[in-house]
Amino acid sequence: MNKNRLEAFSDGVMAIIITIMVLELKVPHGETLSDLRTVAPAFFAYVQSFWFVGVYWNNHHHMLHTVKKVNGNIMVLNMLLLFCLSLVPFATAWVGETSFAPVPVAVYAVVLATSGVAWVILQNAIKNSNPWSEAISKAMHRQNIKGLISTIMYLSGIVFAFINPFISEGLFVTVAIMWLWPDKNIEKAFERE
Amino acid sequence: MNKNRLEAFSDGVMAIIITIMVLELKVPHGETLSDLRTVAPAFFAYVQSFWFVGVYWNNHHHMLHTVKKVNGNIMVLNMLLLFCLSLVPFATAWVGETSFAPVPVAVYAVVLATSGVAWVILQNAIKNSNPWSEAISKAMHRQNIKGLISTIMYLSGIVFAFINPFISEGLFVTVAIMWLWPDKNIEKAFERE
Amino acid sequence: MNKNRLEAFSDGVMAIIITIMVLELKVPHGETLSDLRTVAPAFFAYVQSFWFVGVYWNNHHHMLHTVKKVNGNIMVLNMLLLFCLSLVPFATAWVGETSFAPVPVAVYAVVLATSGVAWVILQNAIKNSNPWSEAISKAMHRQNIKGLISTIMYLSGIVFAFINPFISEGLFVTVAIMWLWPDKNIEKAFERE
Amino acid sequence: MNKNRLEAFSDGVMAIIITIMVLELKVPHGETLSDLRTVAPAFFAYVQSFWFVGVYWNNHHHMLHTVKKVNGNIMVLNMLLLFCLSLVPFATAWVGETSFAPVPVAVYAVVLATSGVAWVILQNAIKNSNPWSEAISKAMHRQNIKGLISTIMYLSGIVFAFINPFISEGLFVTVAIMWLWPDKNIEKAFERE
Repeated sequence: MNKNRLEAFSDGVMAIIITIMVLELKVPHGETLSDLRTVAPAFFAYVQSFWFVGVYWNNHHHMLHTVKKVNGNIMVLNMLLLFCLSLVPFATAWVGETSFAPVPVAVYAVVLATSGVAWVILQNAIKNSNPWSEAISKAMHRQNIKGLISTIMYLSGIVFAFINPFISEGLFVTVAIMWLWPDKNIEKAFERE
Repeated sequence: MNKNRLEAFSDGVMAIIITIMVLELKVPHGETLSDLRTVAPAFFAYVQSFWFVGVYWNNHHHMLHTVKKVNGNIMVLNMLLLFCLSLVPFATAWVGETSFAPVPVAVYAVVLATSGVAWVILQNAIKNSNPWSEAISKAMHRQNIKGLISTIMYLSGIVFAFINPFISEGLFVTVAIMWLWPDKNIEKAFERE
Repeated sequence: MNKNRLEAFSDGVMAIIITIMVLELKVPHGETLSDLRTVAPAFFAYVQSFWFVGVYWNNHHHMLHTVKKVNGNIMVLNMLLLFCLSLVPFATAWVGETSFAPVPVAVYAVVLATSGVAWVILQNAIKNSNPWSEAISKAMHRQNIKGLISTIMYLSGIVFAFINPFISEGLFVTVAIMWLWPDKNIEKAFERE
Repeated sequence: MNKNRLEAFSDGVMAIIITIMVLELKVPHGETLSDLRTVAPAFFAYVQSFWFVGVYWNNHHHMLHTVKKVNGNIMVLNMLLLFCLSLVPFATAWVGETSFAPVPVAVYAVVLATSGVAWVILQNAIKNSNPWSEAISKAMHRQNIKGLISTIMYLSGIVFAFINPFISEGLFVTVAIMWLWPDKNIEKAFERE
């Protein structure tokens, strides 16, 4: 019951985050193909962020499967994660409007890295109050390693943004590809439970 | 369970897409009837898109009825469909602001066609992992033909936009009318299941 | 099942409509109390529209209680109602920005009247496919009379807007007060079922 | 049933309120760190409001746990609370854009105080129609005292805004910290029920 409402609220917030980003995709001023081309950086940033938030939603979905009992800690830390994710539209818009300038890309990387850290903290709180079975732990282990690599790549993205923002973008795209397909092991582990 | 959350998230995103489009219906600068008339193209584009997203929602609803087991593939491909649909407000606003200029109408047609293709891919993934009964298959068959015709008309809409965008609009309206009333066969097939 | 998703989608759309209206409440340019006063008409229009959409949500809630079986008709007509309501933020913003100018107020009245008509059509479709018990019919009867009076007042509001928009506003406020408190008879009738 | 839809609608509205606030976090015009710094006041105001709405969501969640039967009163008063909360994005944006000018901060305090009062009224209506067990009453008692202190601090915040808005901000932050962690007594009381 408790959990359903937490899920519903998180789904609501993530659905809104993912959708209002398109409002930042400003309609071009002219009506030609070259006017459309001016939207290209914003569009690319949108695709990327849509994907990142989508992956978070998908993983959140899995993580909450392991929750039997929601407590205050989980509530607050879940709110913290949603807060970090709520900054994605802002960072995306800034990156898009400046066509991948160094500071905006670094800020984007900070938002992604912070979300990653918020995720780990939330997951630990969940694990502590809702111990995982060995099968789930094992399945989640691989995902956690992917999460760790992602966070390291985001953190590197902050540094590289000041050298060449496109290196950072390359890192983000790599992370996105890494998460492209949901982990079958997790699915199987959950099914067996 | 799994499926409920997928439905809830998809409903959320489609509800937001359909509703935020109205934010692109900019308030006229003056306060007279002729000021209101300047909003006419944007209003017409809004009506059309509202209807298209509404039809997608309705069909999505039917399609998910046939899903017993959600897997990673379905998750990702559903996200792809939602992504395509999330571009509808952008294309709608551009079409409206330029009063049906060729390139915006072509882009609008591209968005609709891409959504149509994403739909087919998602439906195939669902069919593969959740085999349909013969009754459902038969009922869905007619809808699939309608879907195919729609996609062909969208694709033609891209070409015609550069000749006369109003021909494309005529095609879109035809598609809209084709989907005007939900298919009774599908309803009956589902009821019998 | 069917019905739950219809409810969820309608709730989602109405929740978004009611909330995005606040985005049209533009932040004043200055920082003084007299700057705030410039927002007064927009604020008043917002309060009114929030209340109208809220009343629709509340009544929608009751009406769907009487639905056992959702069919294609109900789906489409519900979408039509949501479409009419989705124009409320547009009309509200125009009324607010022009401080209750005649045409915007008339347009606002048109939107309310159209929503009222869409409501009646939807309700009839529901009654036809989900016959009401006598108790429900009786309880709904009074509400229908209130609905009829409201629609007549909205229609008068269109005419009066061109004489003096504040007469129209007076009519809207009267309607709002008429719906201020939910009907206890309906509640009781539903409970007894 | 009734209650589920009330919860769903409230969750939807609160999720939208909390998320659209980020749209008021306007993208800086330049692309440097000092451009980002211009967003700092708006960002701070955003963090604060996100937290306040989050706390309301969390407490609303608890309060509705005590509801068995929803009636018209609860419906209307819940709508009143949502209305007050819906003004948070407006007040937040004004505070942020004016970098904590006196009148905007006072208006922000008014919105928070009004929400607090709406909360108390709603809670009383719930208690009257859904009598609380002694355990729940006791657990809620402490929270009510916190609520009372918060409202007093908001009211003081209105006055102090005209002396020094940062004193008001200090009060708001104090309230935020006071609500930082959900009350364990309430959780326990609910579990025992």
